[in-house]
Amino acid sequence: MTTNATAASDLYDFTEPFKAPQGSAIRELFKYLARPGMISFAGGYPSKDLFDRAGIRRAMEEAYRADPIACLQYGDTAGAPALRRAIVRLMNDRSVAREIDDLIVTTGSQQGLDLLIKILVAPGDAVLIEEPAYPAAIQALRLAGAKLIPVRTDTQGIDVDALTEQLEALDPAVRPKLLYTVPTFANPTGTTLPVERREALARLAMRFRFVLIEDDPYGELRFTGDPVKPIIALADAIPGARDWVVYFGSLSKIVAPGLRIGWSIASPAITRRMLVAKQTSDLCTSPLAQETARFYLESGRLAEHVPVIVQAYKKRYEALSSALRQFVPDDIEYVVPQGGMFVWARLKGDRLAADVLKRAIEQNVIYVPGPAFYVHNADESSMRLSFAAAPGEAEVFEGVRRLKLALASR
Amino acid sequence: MTTNATAASDLYDFTEPFKAPQGSAIRELFKYLARPGMISFAGGYPSKDLFDRAGIRRAMEEAYRADPIACLQYGDTAGAPALRRAIVRLMNDRSVAREIDDLIVTTGSQQGLDLLIKILVAPGDAVLIEEPAYPAAIQALRLAGAKLIPVRTDTQGIDVDALTEQLEALDPAVRPKLLYTVPTFANPTGTTLPVERREALARLAMRFRFVLIEDDPYGELRFTGDPVKPIIALADAIPGARDWVVYFGSLSKIVAPGLRIGWSIASPAITRRMLVAKQTSDLCTSPLAQETARFYLESGRLAEHVPVIVQAYKKRYEALSSALRQFVPDDIEYVVPQGGMFVWARLKGDRLAADVLKRAIEQNVIYVPGPAFYVHNADESSMRLSFAAAPGEAEVFEGVRRLKLALASR
Repeated sequence: MTTNATAASDLYDFTEPFKAPQGSAIRELFKYLARPGMISFAGGYPSKDLFDRAGIRRAMEEAYRADPIACLQYGDTAGAPALRRAIVRLMNDRSVAREIDDLIVTTGSQQGLDLLIKILVAPGDAVLIEEPAYPAAIQALRLAGAKLIPVRTDTQGIDVDALTEQLEALDPAVRPKLLYTVPTFANPTGTTLPVERREALARLAMRFRFVLIEDDPYGELRFTGDPVKPIIALADAIPGARDWVVYFGSLSKIVAPGLRIGWSIASPAITRRMLVAKQTSDLCTSPLAQETARFYLESGRLAEHVPVIVQAYKKRYEALSSALRQFVPDDIEYVVPQGGMFVWARLKGDRLAADVLKRAIEQNVIYVPGPAFYVHNADESSMRLSFAAAPGEAEVFEGVRRLKLALASR
Repeated sequence: MTTNATAASDLYDFTEPFKAPQGSAIRELFKYLARPGMISFAGGYPSKDLFDRAGIRRAMEEAYRADPIACLQYGDTAGAPALRRAIVRLMNDRSVAREIDDLIVTTGSQQGLDLLIKILVAPGDAVLIEEPAYPAAIQALRLAGAKLIPVRTDTQGIDVDALTEQLEALDPAVRPKLLYTVPTFANPTGTTLPVERREALARLAMRFRFVLIEDDPYGELRFTGDPVKPIIALADAIPGARDWVVYFGSLSKIVAPGLRIGWSIASPAITRRMLVAKQTSDLCTSPLAQETARFYLESGRLAEHVPVIVQAYKKRYEALSSALRQFVPDDIEYVVPQGGMFVWARLKGDRLAADVLKRAIEQNVIYVPGPAFYVHNADESSMRLSFAAAPGEAEVFEGVRRLKLALASR
């Protein structure tokens, strides 16, 4: 860098609508992950011990042997037809009746959100988002310049009555374009929206004309209770509702994130526009990854493998809840999940999760303080505990024992 | 769809700044590719016959064997450090001296452009773009609501003197944020910007404070003439210019597009912001594809394989130019490329490329009419002829013979 010239970094007027990007608090924690002996409840990653390594390797090798060109050349922007057919079958098992033309293969379901934002959200547009929410959704919407309107949740997800009042009270000039929710085993709260609320939400989307995003990466990971149909499936029975729901699915939590294979299901009008946006985003999702995913899904191993993941997560959850009751019954309360990867907890006595985290790090245990998941008025006593990535029940107990020590060292 | 309710597709006020997306003319041609006996000069794809199938398969298998978790789990948003190191070495060979922290692995270089647009371009912002230009760049900028200002090119790429006058004459309130160019073996023109113009362009970027995008997917594919350093390398010798240049590289044309591995090289200020945008776009590029790319680059096979591709493209280009001189010397003139995949041609006598295409399709040969590459006032007699994907010299001759028949059938 010279002194007589002006550097781009100094003078450029970057479009940067956020000052402190959400998610930075989470990223800040990454540096502790590598510390010897650290026990992490912080990660949003699936358990690396539960990947079907042999099955995926075989799928990859078979895909390459069957058609190396299909793996190596550019592919359809919408995704390989054979993979889309396999995903349609998977969605049929989830009661979702759609055709391959309604479906786009995305580079992880994160890209589905990105594409939908690209075609729908202009700077200043209002967007509804459940709160607390998945941080990368908050971040993506902020980067697009959206005006975020938080939507209240309780232990069953979005409070639809409160949302209805909120929408009725809105200035008619402020028409929200989207509502973002993870209705099943939410991140970070682990909550699941009951069927009546799902139907009411679909009706609200139609009535107030916003696109309802159903982000569903965890839906298969149910370890207790009865399955609830996805909103997009329920919408079929509500005249006019179907086109207002956009569903995002993913192989990241049931096969492997490293493939970066997600999908969107949407109306033809939305799908057509998302395809144009996809073309400009990455032309197509890696055909090598797509063909691997296709052969894996066609192998039928997923139906056997998902229960393996679910049983392991169930045990880890039970270890966590048992340890919380044993070690910190007077310090931490939490919401009971029916599946997924997360427990949403709260420090009693209004202690700050960020303060306790400092002492937890000294004890070699970490979690994510709740404020990372809020748009505005964060509950600073809240925290997300991930049980998915814990290597075993013994580590979970040890982690909570350390939390107890951290809490005691105030 | 019911009749008593309002469908999202009917009423939704989609943000769609373009009426007829660029690239649709190209996509329209895809349906003819499958026709038996069709000879295509239309594709922008690399030749599928020239993929190093065995080498890539070995890299993929070795990567998976070495560390399946690294292939299957989420990875760094910036890209795997080992892959970034391998790309830094590749860039050193292109005279570009940068560190891995200056480099982000992107899901194809298309994503690099997408990320840069996300952090820099707000609706209504002015953006300079060479004309004719890569259609997916035009499309990406249009989708972001950019006001496109075409920049004149000649047989050596951007006419920098004309650009200087253009910038000096601009209303100071209209400050272009970006300039997009493919300076080496451009798509669609095949032209290469001389070193003096490269340096002048870097100086202009600094003087008028726009970010200069050097998109370089074809740079290694030189079959004649002396190499010219990338603009980002030349900028190091121009005080203050370095931070204004952003370079996009790609493995799509030298290894395989199916990996979707590209990269950006930029200043720390821009890279930091692009990383936030990347996080919201797809979290990370497929680690499976990244690890495969890493092991391939580390195998050293690329240095032996690029000359194989270059020699094949050289022969195909020579066949095309020879056939054009033999069959249609009075009908088609063209710009001589020194490398890459494309010949930019023009129908003499102001005949329309789109009209001739209809007759060409009847003769079982296709190309892309020039208007697909223009922002505004298209040269409707121009056309892009790709010689890369032609399977052999005999097909090239036969294709041009058919073009002659199409031209004769007016």
